[in-house]
Amino acid sequence: MKKIYLDNAATTRVADEVLEAMKPFFNEKYGNASSLHSFGREAKQALEESRNKIAKFLGVDASEIVFTSCATESNNFAIKGIAFANKNKGKHIVTTKIEHPCVLESCKWLEKNGFEVTYLPVDEYGLVRPEDVENAIRKDTILVSVMYANNEIGTVEPISEIGKICREKGVIFHTDAVQSFGKIPLEIDNVDLLSASAHKLYGPKGVGLLLIRKGIKIDTLLSGGGHESGRRSGTENVAGIVGFATAVELAKKEMNKEIERQRKLRDILIKNTLEIEKSKLNGHPTIRLPNNTNFSFYGIEGESLIMRLDDKGIAASTGSACSSPKLLPSHVLLAIGLSPALAHGSLRMTLGRYNTKEEIDYVCDVLPKVVEDLRKISPYGG
Amino acid sequence: MKKIYLDNAATTRVADEVLEAMKPFFNEKYGNASSLHSFGREAKQALEESRNKIAKFLGVDASEIVFTSCATESNNFAIKGIAFANKNKGKHIVTTKIEHPCVLESCKWLEKNGFEVTYLPVDEYGLVRPEDVENAIRKDTILVSVMYANNEIGTVEPISEIGKICREKGVIFHTDAVQSFGKIPLEIDNVDLLSASAHKLYGPKGVGLLLIRKGIKIDTLLSGGGHESGRRSGTENVAGIVGFATAVELAKKEMNKEIERQRKLRDILIKNTLEIEKSKLNGHPTIRLPNNTNFSFYGIEGESLIMRLDDKGIAASTGSACSSPKLLPSHVLLAIGLSPALAHGSLRMTLGRYNTKEEIDYVCDVLPKVVEDLRKISPYGG
Repeated sequence: MKKIYLDNAATTRVADEVLEAMKPFFNEKYGNASSLHSFGREAKQALEESRNKIAKFLGVDASEIVFTSCATESNNFAIKGIAFANKNKGKHIVTTKIEHPCVLESCKWLEKNGFEVTYLPVDEYGLVRPEDVENAIRKDTILVSVMYANNEIGTVEPISEIGKICREKGVIFHTDAVQSFGKIPLEIDNVDLLSASAHKLYGPKGVGLLLIRKGIKIDTLLSGGGHESGRRSGTENVAGIVGFATAVELAKKEMNKEIERQRKLRDILIKNTLEIEKSKLNGHPTIRLPNNTNFSFYGIEGESLIMRLDDKGIAASTGSACSSPKLLPSHVLLAIGLSPALAHGSLRMTLGRYNTKEEIDYVCDVLPKVVEDLRKISPYGG
Repeated sequence: MKKIYLDNAATTRVADEVLEAMKPFFNEKYGNASSLHSFGREAKQALEESRNKIAKFLGVDASEIVFTSCATESNNFAIKGIAFANKNKGKHIVTTKIEHPCVLESCKWLEKNGFEVTYLPVDEYGLVRPEDVENAIRKDTILVSVMYANNEIGTVEPISEIGKICREKGVIFHTDAVQSFGKIPLEIDNVDLLSASAHKLYGPKGVGLLLIRKGIKIDTLLSGGGHESGRRSGTENVAGIVGFATAVELAKKEMNKEIERQRKLRDILIKNTLEIEKSKLNGHPTIRLPNNTNFSFYGIEGESLIMRLDDKGIAASTGSACSSPKLLPSHVLLAIGLSPALAHGSLRMTLGRYNTKEEIDYVCDVLPKVVEDLRKISPYGG
């Protein structure tokens, strides 16, 4: 059976171009980028070329890009690093209820260590209200962190507006752009820190970045030999970073075309799925990522749906992959007002560059039957 | 010109077997190990099989292995994580003056945040005295961290003895085993936490591990989705972890043979190099890693030596790759009593599985001439 991968928000297949670019750095150009000899210089050059490519894509200075091991590290680094470096100025942080667990847990960790955090609500579509951010900022607020686009429901936040408010108030602004980086054009003029990850855009797992604007005071999370201009120690993952840069160049080339193509497929999927009785689209109908769909079906458990679809060769998720094994109702769906029962019944299908119209047609054909079958056996009734 | 890589303590070439094992996890089995569907389960299975292989090699329970992104992360995690989780018991930490920068800087970071650290001296060979550890432990000591083998001079520390003292005193004991893991048999019965890294043993860069014994209370460094049983969040680098496990299996198979082979080559290198006038071996003559050599040459700057050797196709280092770009005299060489001038003139050549007798013969032939040439032009005189 051919498998259809519709979980591109969880992770993506490494593009062939990316893997080819990475290969020589495993067993030919394998030097440590900190070494002085030719192997080291070769690695260092690849590292800096990669940094330049990504900086150019973001429209920032190369010195503002720090490579990390993943978005979780980038978000921990941003939030804890800003908190520790600026604690003499204040100990208050503003974020939202729908952030990724690595942002929320970093905030909770800070709360255990003397900081105070305001978790802003969102509207029924998952949109953060800029006026809520403005009202939440206090004299002792040192950081605002709002994600660029939500990983579960795909809602794209008013980052430019929120950033403008932070700038006016003189508060550092961080955005977790993991789901939007390389997927949609970003407006980051008012962003001080930005997190991104390679494996969400056809790059390898194990490499991420944190954009840190010049002049922003940040403490280290990984202390040590002083790599990445003293901001993130640890031997640089040269192969991974070269892969990341190659993935970014690919995104640059294909983004506009893929936005159009995936949006069309997404809208076919949404239209067809909403024809299923007692179904509901989660997230904003239009202000959402071109590759994201998220539905709730009354009377159905998300996990059963995932397993049935898996049997039919369709890989989808109930929400964030990170939280899947816990089988808790999604904090994002609860935040947009769903009941715990309905939040349990969600289905996220996220598109990518390898998905075809034929695949989406197959899903549109299979999904109604699967939902119908499950409702027949559901204890919640049909 | 054929290049001779003698910087295996900085990083190693990824073994072909390792790269082959990794490949499918980039673009075929590319699922997120937290996903419930078949792609996810396939990734999860590979992850747990890798964990089992490494646990078996170490003789520990698989649940005690936490994967990280590198040894720097493992060491930061161990030291800061133990400190934060046990701060109600005490705020004193014992380590040594010759630890890797990521251990020393983690300790310095803790000093800035209310902890107290004792940095033990070493003897002229770089050996830590177990009685010094015993005397340094106080009622409020919560952690002792001593590296298994030094990365610059290769001296192997009395870890079993130090661990026994810690156990008797009820203090948690961590060892940074980056240079010894997979290189020499480890005695870790009395070790509570152990750091290791894949790229030092023919695995990829960007993956490490922290062994955390059952019952040890540790705070997270990377907070988030709760991966690695809640101890280290972030999407698992499945390809990298599979590579790490493959490298460990390779080490298991070849270790005894390679110890003998590399020790012989090392001793040829030491014997020949010490015939150069005014040269000195740094580190212990016998209690040292089988692949490590470290010399000082009076009247010569290490960096010039590295560059001249590089011109002759030989890749070596002045000490730790991590500190190379800073051009500071090595803290390890200063700790064993070398003058700053002599510490500047060091040469580290570290062997690996790809080095041959012919290569070592070539180095033995070239090195005396290079040293002689440099001394002729040295401002310090010959």
